[in-house]
Amino acid sequence: MQLEFFGTGAGMPGKFRNVASVALRLLDEINEIWLFDCGEGTQQQMLESTIKPRKIDKIFITHLHGDHIFGLPGLLSSRSFQGGHDAVTIYGPVGVKDFVQTSLRVSQTKLAYQINYKELTQPGMIYQGKKFTVMADRLDHQIECWGYRVIEHDHPGELLVDKLHAAGIPSGPLYGQLKQGKAVKLADGRTINGADFIGAPQKGRIVTILGDTRKTASIVTLAANADILVHESTFGKGESKLARNYYHSTNLQAAQTAAQTGVHQLLLTHISARYTSKMARELQKDARQCFSQTKVVRDFDVIDVPFPKRKEKQP
Amino acid sequence: MQLEFFGTGAGMPGKFRNVASVALRLLDEINEIWLFDCGEGTQQQMLESTIKPRKIDKIFITHLHGDHIFGLPGLLSSRSFQGGHDAVTIYGPVGVKDFVQTSLRVSQTKLAYQINYKELTQPGMIYQGKKFTVMADRLDHQIECWGYRVIEHDHPGELLVDKLHAAGIPSGPLYGQLKQGKAVKLADGRTINGADFIGAPQKGRIVTILGDTRKTASIVTLAANADILVHESTFGKGESKLARNYYHSTNLQAAQTAAQTGVHQLLLTHISARYTSKMARELQKDARQCFSQTKVVRDFDVIDVPFPKRKEKQP
Ligand SMILES: [Zn+2]
Ligand SMILES: [Zn+2]
Repeated sequence: MQLEFFGTGAGMPGKFRNVASVALRLLDEINEIWLFDCGEGTQQQMLESTIKPRKIDKIFITHLHGDHIFGLPGLLSSRSFQGGHDAVTIYGPVGVKDFVQTSLRVSQTKLAYQINYKELTQPGMIYQGKKFTVMADRLDHQIECWGYRVIEHDHPGELLVDKLHAAGIPSGPLYGQLKQGKAVKLADGRTINGADFIGAPQKGRIVTILGDTRKTASIVTLAANADILVHESTFGKGESKLARNYYHSTNLQAAQTAAQTGVHQLLLTHISARYTSKMARELQKDARQCFSQTKVVRDFDVIDVPFPKRKEKQP
Repeated sequence: MQLEFFGTGAGMPGKFRNVASVALRLLDEINEIWLFDCGEGTQQQMLESTIKPRKIDKIFITHLHGDHIFGLPGLLSSRSFQGGHDAVTIYGPVGVKDFVQTSLRVSQTKLAYQINYKELTQPGMIYQGKKFTVMADRLDHQIECWGYRVIEHDHPGELLVDKLHAAGIPSGPLYGQLKQGKAVKLADGRTINGADFIGAPQKGRIVTILGDTRKTASIVTLAANADILVHESTFGKGESKLARNYYHSTNLQAAQTAAQTGVHQLLLTHISARYTSKMARELQKDARQCFSQTKVVRDFDVIDVPFPKRKEKQP
């Protein structure tokens, strides 16, 4: 589970940062890739990556500003060209379907796969699979904008085979019952409680990816205890008034939110082209004063999403 | 007057060639830049150039396939962001307006300038200015596709000041009359014929830019005696059957057309990603067997459009 950034800039593509797009790589978990936003040139950025458009199963759009969607028609077309046959689901504000369908109709693009559109109309759970659930809620931007909270389900504890062997319990079909936590009577008369031979469950990870937004209440729930929070940082400290006027956030506001919501790591993105790479480091430094686990991401950064650190239950 | 290529690939962006777009730089002539096609990522390519989106006055779209138009919404938005205030005119097939307007409406983009749409419905003259005329005609592609012939008006001959001085004719207001070719009576009684003191007129240049097309009759008129012909070359020699099936041309067909129509220089573009740079050189070599003045262009190539060579009238 990694985040791979294809665009970390704000508003317009610049020489060093393309417009918004980030992939959540779930290859090890469910062999899928989910894309969040798709600014113009996302598919070109992807040429530098191991990700192929046909591996993308879901696309989540935060809002319909051009720097977040104008790469969609091209990516969807190339996905078909390159042999993508599996359906793709697009989540986003009402209007995303109109944009995509008009683009494909006018360009007479015939896709080799189906698009399922899930236009969001109310906050809550928008996807529930076997291993992941996605929640969405509205943010506070100039136009309707959503934030997404991706929740990995907890992994049940592993059967502690070594401990079973040490207790002289032979391998066999009863291991299956023990794994389910059941009590089992052995041939030698002993009754074994499966729960005693199961390791600690592994808590699932949480990744929260927000669209452009002012500081607002819904972020608190979306970001609570997230392992990674991806937050915009269009403005720097001292520019909170500008940020408010333009419906954006400063680096400090993002850091405050991260500290307040118990986030483990904060990734700042949507960096204005006004910020040179030196100034971007300043953005990071200033944010770290408030929340030390802050990183200003750059295009092509790949960030691992680690399992939350916790005390292991001793076997 | 130069052509600057931003994308020379076919169908999909590749690592080395972006999708279609080429600018005709008319800065010295009329301080304008005209763009022909605008595939996704054109504005990103432009970041490597001295051309700014706000300098673009006219956009000519050959056809509505995604690799020729998906960069339009982003380019038009950035043009506004960057302070473009002058109107822009978009020429192209019916449907280009729908695509652009839907994109701008859905993304709630408010441009600081006006777009004039000229959707093409019949072949002929589509623009006539003081210094340039543009003709358009239909090509033979899978969907409606147009080729453009940009004709620079002839420059009238210059007044031959040295020759006037040699003939002892003093500078003064009568030079203006002579320049218009009028006969003028001098104070010393001589009658001077202006036409004798005007150099040869400079023939204007012709640049023909075609969209994707099979070999077809309209190209002959569009390309006749052009100083530069920009022609697609999606396939190589020996693939004329494939080219026909997919409504495209081979390098050899383009070269034959160039030879047949009296073109001075042939620029091959719309090169498939199947062609490595070595193979692209082969495409060029093979085409040169038929038409020596052939060049396979690459992204960021800037090609000067020279005045046609001709015998200078001796002063
Ligand atoms: Zn944005
Ligand atoms: Zn094409």
